[in-house]
Amino acid sequence: MEALKQRIQRDGKIRGNNEVLKVDSFLNHQMDVAFLEEIGREFRRRFAGCQVDRILTIEASGIGIACLAAPAFDHVPVVFAKKNKTKNIDGNVYLSQVESFTQGKRPYPIFVSKEFLHPGERVLLIDDFLANGSALSALIDLVHQAGAQVVGAGIVIEKAFQPGGALIRGKGVRVESLARIESMDEEDGITFCD
Amino acid sequence: MEALKQRIQRDGKIRGNNEVLKVDSFLNHQMDVAFLEEIGREFRRRFAGCQVDRILTIEASGIGIACLAAPAFDHVPVVFAKKNKTKNIDGNVYLSQVESFTQGKRPYPIFVSKEFLHPGERVLLIDDFLANGSALSALIDLVHQAGAQVVGAGIVIEKAFQPGGALIRGKGVRVESLARIESMDEEDGITFCD
Repeated sequence: MEALKQRIQRDGKIRGNNEVLKVDSFLNHQMDVAFLEEIGREFRRRFAGCQVDRILTIEASGIGIACLAAPAFDHVPVVFAKKNKTKNIDGNVYLSQVESFTQGKRPYPIFVSKEFLHPGERVLLIDDFLANGSALSALIDLVHQAGAQVVGAGIVIEKAFQPGGALIRGKGVRVESLARIESMDEEDGITFCD
Repeated sequence: MEALKQRIQRDGKIRGNNEVLKVDSFLNHQMDVAFLEEIGREFRRRFAGCQVDRILTIEASGIGIACLAAPAFDHVPVVFAKKNKTKNIDGNVYLSQVESFTQGKRPYPIFVSKEFLHPGERVLLIDDFLANGSALSALIDLVHQAGAQVVGAGIVIEKAFQPGGALIRGKGVRVESLARIESMDEEDGITFCD
């Protein structure tokens, strides 16, 4: 998606020893809502002709992207996997584990209430980043636990130099990443694949 | 908002000793996107004629509501206050503290990058619930730290039997709650104000 690549070139900041791409001016802290609507329409084009019954994402930064994509998918329900158990949630959940590289923490659990994922449904996964694939793996696991089917994963930015893309595609899941970063470096900048 | 009251009556579940209202089938776990768009338009009607430069909310459940309200506010940027410091964020942030009643935990910090709140801006706060007012108080604090102005708070559900509404209105902040719950009880059900 050309407009996205341009936006990343313009506003993205490389941090943390060339490992972190900050795009929090438009994607995951401040959100450019009109641009996210455009991203949502691009996901619809990528998955044209695919039946999608539900969009599944993970809190927190996936939520806005998923919600603003949903109108392009006939306003299907959006569900976000939660990270922290609160007393607002029943025990009746699908649970999985995410290994966190970004946060430099131990694996953490995510869950979705069994009410909101159903056998036979066709579920589109949406997230902001694909790097090591750990969050996406856990989302796929939740969908499979429910007996539902993964249509594919719509990713805004894939760090193609990290193993997540190969890991997820190796599971037979279709991954559509709107920008695939081949390399990034504070001095040399960002290079995209293709 | 009549449609919202009906939805709460139909789908809301009272839990936790009559203290918790679960509306996670449409508001804060599974999200009814078309309905949230309607809620966004209702916020616009409530704040008709008010200049809004930015919407501020708090992760996680405020994000989808804010993002789907933004189109009704000329697609102003949405910013969400974050709860956990990650290495993706610079140190240059406005920080405040939220006392958590829902999670039964100790106060936790929230922050917004100083890049995304500016002096003189008119900021609309949006959140799913107003109960004790602790999250909203912290958001107001962040806006004031930035030298920006609070236009008001758009709340989906106010638990009017808890002290948050009076607390926030007592600060001189206009609060528009789309449904105000007078009382709720697993046996007697939900009663709305007015």
